[in-house]
Amino acid sequence: MYPKSLRNLIDNFRRLPGVGEKTAERYALSAADMDPAEIENFAASLLDVKDHLRHCEICGNLSDEDECDICKDESRDHQTIFVVESSRDIIAMEKTGDYHGVYHVLNGLISTSKGVLPEDLNIDQLVRRADGSKEIILATSATRDGEITAMYLEKLLHQKYPDLLITRIAHGLPAGGMLDYADEMTLSHALSDRKSME
Amino acid sequence: MYPKSLRNLIDNFRRLPGVGEKTAERYALSAADMDPAEIENFAASLLDVKDHLRHCEICGNLSDEDECDICKDESRDHQTIFVVESSRDIIAMEKTGDYHGVYHVLNGLISTSKGVLPEDLNIDQLVRRADGSKEIILATSATRDGEITAMYLEKLLHQKYPDLLITRIAHGLPAGGMLDYADEMTLSHALSDRKSME
Repeated sequence: MYPKSLRNLIDNFRRLPGVGEKTAERYALSAADMDPAEIENFAASLLDVKDHLRHCEICGNLSDEDECDICKDESRDHQTIFVVESSRDIIAMEKTGDYHGVYHVLNGLISTSKGVLPEDLNIDQLVRRADGSKEIILATSATRDGEITAMYLEKLLHQKYPDLLITRIAHGLPAGGMLDYADEMTLSHALSDRKSME
Repeated sequence: MYPKSLRNLIDNFRRLPGVGEKTAERYALSAADMDPAEIENFAASLLDVKDHLRHCEICGNLSDEDECDICKDESRDHQTIFVVESSRDIIAMEKTGDYHGVYHVLNGLISTSKGVLPEDLNIDQLVRRADGSKEIILATSATRDGEITAMYLEKLLHQKYPDLLITRIAHGLPAGGMLDYADEMTLSHALSDRKSME
């Protein structure tokens, strides 16, 4: 029904997560309305990501160079490693401005339902980096897969480095969260992880 | 915070309608995960739209050629013209399979709030095409701008071709629509446009 060039572009937009036919149509028609220079820039930015974006050799974070800006930053504490699922989590954490150590990106979580095994993740490199570190902060999500991955890593790292401090980020009521809207799991964590107000 | 190549791609996705920072990040990260061939295909489809997509010289519909497939189709009734706001409306109408005439795309609606004047739309060409036509079906949206545009076109066409049949698509309760969920305007139209059941 659509001209071939537009149909192809719609199909490409449909490859993006959560984009159905209607949304892809809207995107493609809006791209068709862009200035030639804008649409060229869009296409070039896709090719640029393909050609230059890679995973940092040290931590697995996305980077345009072999080593990411955080790993290259000598002012950070390289003996504290904050372990996350993806590069997006690093962005979220960096926005807080509260963390000054380095990161390690697993590129996924162990998942029985999705068939993701420990060997599919960036774990060997974490074990190597943990040698000589002070603290490993396990910051995978508070989901089933996130908890399983954290437990697996704790066991693995503890076996190899019995004296290494391994921590897990806190679970509890989110900022602004109301008790009567929180689910049972959140409330259960909020209760068991309560701390003295002194 | 993001590598430069990824930041550029995020900014490009943000140009799409309704796409904010979070969604653009998700799209860009998903594009970064694509195979090189897939991402090249995506970039090529953007450039293809830039190079080949244009408006049909006759009706204003989007087309890869000077004349669109519908205008080229000799089996259709070229004396009945269905006037719509955009090419998307043509797709929607063609899906019904009920219409066998041709179309005319205005590329917008007259709008005082958005400052769109009649001369900004594909109206002169409609007036030319109306010469020798049997019927002009005004199918702009049932919104304020859609009604104003329909009224403007009716007056313009009637002045020039007093004998031309000019119709407006029906307004009323949508299929599956329940009376107690319908707004006042819809109910008011449904009442005034009621027809005999004989």
